[in-house]
Amino acid sequence: MRNISRVADEPIITSLLDVDFYKFTMGQLIFLLHPNVPVRFTFKNRTKGVNLFEHVDLGELREQLEHVRTLSFNNSDLHYLRGTNEYGEQRMFREEYLQFLSKLKLPEFDLRVEGGDLALDFYGPWAEVTYWETISLSIKNELYYRSLMNKLSSFQRTVHYAEGRIRLFSKIQKILNRDNSLKPWEGRIVCSEFGTRRRFAKAWQDEVIEALAEEIPRDQLRGTSNAYFAQKYGLLPMGSNAHELPMAYSGIYYDADGEDYLYSQKKVLEDWENLYGLELSIALSDTFGSDYFFDRVFTQSQYETWKGSRQDSGDPIQYGEKRIENYIDHGVDPTKKMILFSDGLDIDKIIQIQRRFANRLVPTFGWGTDLTNDLGFDPLSLVVKVTKAAGHDVAKLSDNIEKAMGEPEAIERMKKLVGYKVAYSEACRY
Amino acid sequence: MRNISRVADEPIITSLLDVDFYKFTMGQLIFLLHPNVPVRFTFKNRTKGVNLFEHVDLGELREQLEHVRTLSFNNSDLHYLRGTNEYGEQRMFREEYLQFLSKLKLPEFDLRVEGGDLALDFYGPWAEVTYWETISLSIKNELYYRSLMNKLSSFQRTVHYAEGRIRLFSKIQKILNRDNSLKPWEGRIVCSEFGTRRRFAKAWQDEVIEALAEEIPRDQLRGTSNAYFAQKYGLLPMGSNAHELPMAYSGIYYDADGEDYLYSQKKVLEDWENLYGLELSIALSDTFGSDYFFDRVFTQSQYETWKGSRQDSGDPIQYGEKRIENYIDHGVDPTKKMILFSDGLDIDKIIQIQRRFANRLVPTFGWGTDLTNDLGFDPLSLVVKVTKAAGHDVAKLSDNIEKAMGEPEAIERMKKLVGYKVAYSEACRY
Repeated sequence: MRNISRVADEPIITSLLDVDFYKFTMGQLIFLLHPNVPVRFTFKNRTKGVNLFEHVDLGELREQLEHVRTLSFNNSDLHYLRGTNEYGEQRMFREEYLQFLSKLKLPEFDLRVEGGDLALDFYGPWAEVTYWETISLSIKNELYYRSLMNKLSSFQRTVHYAEGRIRLFSKIQKILNRDNSLKPWEGRIVCSEFGTRRRFAKAWQDEVIEALAEEIPRDQLRGTSNAYFAQKYGLLPMGSNAHELPMAYSGIYYDADGEDYLYSQKKVLEDWENLYGLELSIALSDTFGSDYFFDRVFTQSQYETWKGSRQDSGDPIQYGEKRIENYIDHGVDPTKKMILFSDGLDIDKIIQIQRRFANRLVPTFGWGTDLTNDLGFDPLSLVVKVTKAAGHDVAKLSDNIEKAMGEPEAIERMKKLVGYKVAYSEACRY
Repeated sequence: MRNISRVADEPIITSLLDVDFYKFTMGQLIFLLHPNVPVRFTFKNRTKGVNLFEHVDLGELREQLEHVRTLSFNNSDLHYLRGTNEYGEQRMFREEYLQFLSKLKLPEFDLRVEGGDLALDFYGPWAEVTYWETISLSIKNELYYRSLMNKLSSFQRTVHYAEGRIRLFSKIQKILNRDNSLKPWEGRIVCSEFGTRRRFAKAWQDEVIEALAEEIPRDQLRGTSNAYFAQKYGLLPMGSNAHELPMAYSGIYYDADGEDYLYSQKKVLEDWENLYGLELSIALSDTFGSDYFFDRVFTQSQYETWKGSRQDSGDPIQYGEKRIENYIDHGVDPTKKMILFSDGLDIDKIIQIQRRFANRLVPTFGWGTDLTNDLGFDPLSLVVKVTKAAGHDVAKLSDNIEKAMGEPEAIERMKKLVGYKVAYSEACRY
């Protein structure tokens, strides 16, 4: 009965499927089009006041990362990916990509202490490096929370799990609208679990997903972004693409004058649609600012045919209102377009957004940290982003400059190119 | 991780040590002095609005009870009892009693449906029947809560455990006075776990006691009334005597004119002190009303030498105030005398009583249902009491006539004998 609260020193990642599903959708595109582009992915701790080095043992982190390098996709993993048929009738993953995966070993990493805190980079060919992203985040997160838990008594740990369960229960009640906070005409919340990278622990995410799968009907719980848990619980694996595509593309198509920048961003969408058709046509718009994206990058045809977009920074209400305007300006009915909200959601924000946009667009929710890391500890804000591609520093601006990432010069360059107004924040330097 | 919430159809009682320790302290006295007195113990459900027969499967209850009849004390159980040295230097349990226990099989029971609800009686020689009390209560309680849990989803069950842990945590914080609700001069709460008979489940009691043992220092957690868990967690086994002694004695020394009644009550205390000295000299005073007990039964010498008394019905504040007066009237310093409060406590009542009587007497707390059955379900109020002894109906009045037990005639007779004022409540007929 009590083993739930043991905080064991055991491998965190035991399957290479234990990543966000978008690693595979993006991974196939990378493998097919840009496998050998040299990239650097950089870890960054955005959590104010938390020095990870004070909590996470360097040797243990190294062991955990090294353990991942011993893993490979087994036959069942490949069967699962091969069998993915949720996005269109044809097989989503090509045999040559699966062949590549079957031989993949994750490349080396560069772990060190720098400026008194942990620093971690991943270098190598893009097709191999990309998988480190969510894996390394899951590991760092879990080691950090293990360190907090290890300071507690066994019963205090048990109480944290209890607190997490109570909170989860309350959220599920609200998703099911048992509190009638949403009126019938405000529709039902449709969400997916997106919490792999920020999870408290793998075992806790497992319990959360099992509970969600048991309690929430499938027309409200669309799926999980985690391929391993999607497999385990027979849920839809959710995911399309992330900032690393537009970021890396801005390096690949780098032009000193910046003239090819717009081309690179349009190229992301074209390559994506060429590979997957419209099945995964959710545009992640905030890499260099969503206003720029919808004004300059997104075409009339994409306005008409793409399913929608993902909101991942800035104000979600403002984002939704602007997109409704954009669609109307382009002669497109916004009520048929999806917005996947995925930025720092909690249940009350979800309800607020649902209420605001029900019947005006199709809101869905990618629910992360608040689902998988809400046991009474403060969440960490850790990211791993591509910071160099094809020899060029690359950056991300986002709709909230506090979330900007990259070398200051790269950030400044991008801000100039897109006409981004807000000042660069020193705090955001990785 | 999830097996905690499974509600298995497995034996509830797996050790004959899994009873209240007072079964052994009383059991030895019964074995030595009145082993063959024929007795009837009767089960009674005092819970308003709950018909157990609607929840508990008769066949399963029978199986659980029959399973207990297959058990016997093993060598380690007897070692544990033989080794009990917490109450005085000499061995508490005589070898002849342990010999008796080593051969004991619990006697038959009479389980049936009567008036639409479960009825259960135990007949036989007192020395054997007595052990059924807490065992049968633990079984009925657990079967009832299993039936409630089985109506829930696995996650809903998990949430009940979570709720229980949160509540337990909060109580422990208060026991440790982390909320500073007790001023330094109001002393520290000293309590024992008394929840075996009303526990939600054996596994839950196990978790509760493990948590208590881990979190609360031994000078605040005196022990547990459960011999099995005292052994498991190295805690002090707590217990002295219960209503069955004065009740059965009132049958054994029955006299049609009632003249020997007072003798029988005095005899209980004498026999007890003769056997155990003053180590277990906690008088349970409410069997026929505490006022009567302290006015008529308790002697000047017992006022002076006995450690204290146990409050098990009526108003605890009133009880304490009256006892302080009694002690002063008898020229005894009440600040040296213990009152063990054990009636329907919760943490707020405990704090209130502690605050009221700190420095005025020695309050300690036998904490039951609120500790071992507080997961969000309503508690049951089930009792098993001796209702016939040596051929005579026997009754208990208690300091709250709602808790009276016995045939109406027996209750009326006792009320007349002790001059009990309150009217007999029909609702209390077993």
